[in-house]
Amino acid sequence: MNKDFSKELEEKKVLVDNAINYYFSKYTFPKELCDSMRYSIIDSGKRIRPILTISTAEIFGTPIDVVMPFAVAIEAIHTYTLIHDDLPAMDNDDFRRGKPTNHKVFGEAIAILAGDAMLTEAFHIMTEETINKKIPLKKAILAINEIAKRCGVNGVVGGQVVDILSENKKIDFTTLEYIHTHKTGALILASIKVGLYLSKTTKRDFKNLTKYGECIGLAFQIMDDILDIEGDFNKLGKKIGADEAKNKNTYPSLIGLARSKEILNELTNTAISKLKPYGEKANFLKNFALYLSSRQS
Amino acid sequence: MNKDFSKELEEKKVLVDNAINYYFSKYTFPKELCDSMRYSIIDSGKRIRPILTISTAEIFGTPIDVVMPFAVAIEAIHTYTLIHDDLPAMDNDDFRRGKPTNHKVFGEAIAILAGDAMLTEAFHIMTEETINKKIPLKKAILAINEIAKRCGVNGVVGGQVVDILSENKKIDFTTLEYIHTHKTGALILASIKVGLYLSKTTKRDFKNLTKYGECIGLAFQIMDDILDIEGDFNKLGKKIGADEAKNKNTYPSLIGLARSKEILNELTNTAISKLKPYGEKANFLKNFALYLSSRQS
Repeated sequence: MNKDFSKELEEKKVLVDNAINYYFSKYTFPKELCDSMRYSIIDSGKRIRPILTISTAEIFGTPIDVVMPFAVAIEAIHTYTLIHDDLPAMDNDDFRRGKPTNHKVFGEAIAILAGDAMLTEAFHIMTEETINKKIPLKKAILAINEIAKRCGVNGVVGGQVVDILSENKKIDFTTLEYIHTHKTGALILASIKVGLYLSKTTKRDFKNLTKYGECIGLAFQIMDDILDIEGDFNKLGKKIGADEAKNKNTYPSLIGLARSKEILNELTNTAISKLKPYGEKANFLKNFALYLSSRQS
Repeated sequence: MNKDFSKELEEKKVLVDNAINYYFSKYTFPKELCDSMRYSIIDSGKRIRPILTISTAEIFGTPIDVVMPFAVAIEAIHTYTLIHDDLPAMDNDDFRRGKPTNHKVFGEAIAILAGDAMLTEAFHIMTEETINKKIPLKKAILAINEIAKRCGVNGVVGGQVVDILSENKKIDFTTLEYIHTHKTGALILASIKVGLYLSKTTKRDFKNLTKYGECIGLAFQIMDDILDIEGDFNKLGKKIGADEAKNKNTYPSLIGLARSKEILNELTNTAISKLKPYGEKANFLKNFALYLSSRQS
């Protein structure tokens, strides 16, 4: 990682962390619910999605305080999906990001409800701040619509359903691609499109950055599949080999590790090529794509 | 029930059912997810919340096609709370509305995800139709904000958390009131306020109908408590005495059946008194309050 990028990445992460702390310190009652929500969202995760949102908007000179509530909402939604995915009825995972999963600490009922509350509060934060900060309403509605669309039946939840139904089954490559682009790719793409909707952009910008988002979204999940084989528990914060143990279909299991790495690189290169028109302004997003495809956690 | 009211109630229910069929027939893939969602929302329930939304808007002459997407979204959210509440980790109920609960038919994982999808699609439907139907953006944002606010930490989910944490414990009346006004009352109040936000109204209208909504919201849950003692399985579609069997705190268990009925009547009368300024236009809401406090299911 080059030093300037590494510093900028850390700065952006701090900005996102501070905003998350701000919004989630407001919740006080019922204490068990608020503790459970904070347990999973505070000081956790790489903040990839909110960083994508604020960095996309930055290219177009959009003030960060306009996009931040939406960036926080996206991270809240991402967090809810993790809490629910880890439940005994789903992936039944005991560890997440190096600590016990939410239901292991708070019990299943509170974990389910913390996820429900997190998803609901995402929409609360976005609408509340649109009103408070007088964010242009058309932009806000389009951004909220994008998020809702990519997180429901034809997005994240749809992907998770197909993933669960495919466990212990041999599936074809098209189905695997569906899982990856919906379960993970959809919210990553939404993170970028929300940055666009809240900015002054052209159709061409939408085309370029949508392609960038689609490529890094899929690349991100392929990298996750690879890390489950080649990763390090201490860096990853979760068990290695979990996919294989659960007979999960992954890129490496379907097309091999070498070909998976090739596709990962192709996707990353395509993503980066779409940033050319933005010159230096897109340097961060360029380095971010490289970072995502070489990360160790 | 007077005949005119009974006919109008049925007509409104048909309108709501048709709209729900319309929106939920659009979902086709993944089939298991869409089937699970439809299992719980189609041809089910009394549609109390969406009927409140369209009837409130009707007083102010707001076109029904403007409010209907929001009314459907509210019913979708109500349905998701039922699916999640019935889960083994929560109330562990086998029957709902006279048929097996969602997780009994589709399994826990799909039931959790169907609830998640239903909540997310509620926001998708509202934003999508705001864009398609060119609904005034400020009204739409305020309506969506109202729903999100009343369904999250300080609303429905908060109420459900306190309810679960109070099981098998002796709680005070204030806590019981918190549970009832949040778990059930919040979404009923939101149903009415959404009708107001989408209409041309005055502050006085907000004050009157908010009071109406608060009263019937609490009355509704007290009636539920009473029906759990005095109801009939065949009419209610669920087991009688479930609250007592689970040591649930209810109005009758805390203050007795007679006093509960008194409060129910007081709340209903107060609600109706707030409708005076609207004369005949509010006849339906008046009869609806009476219907809710004398229902058998």
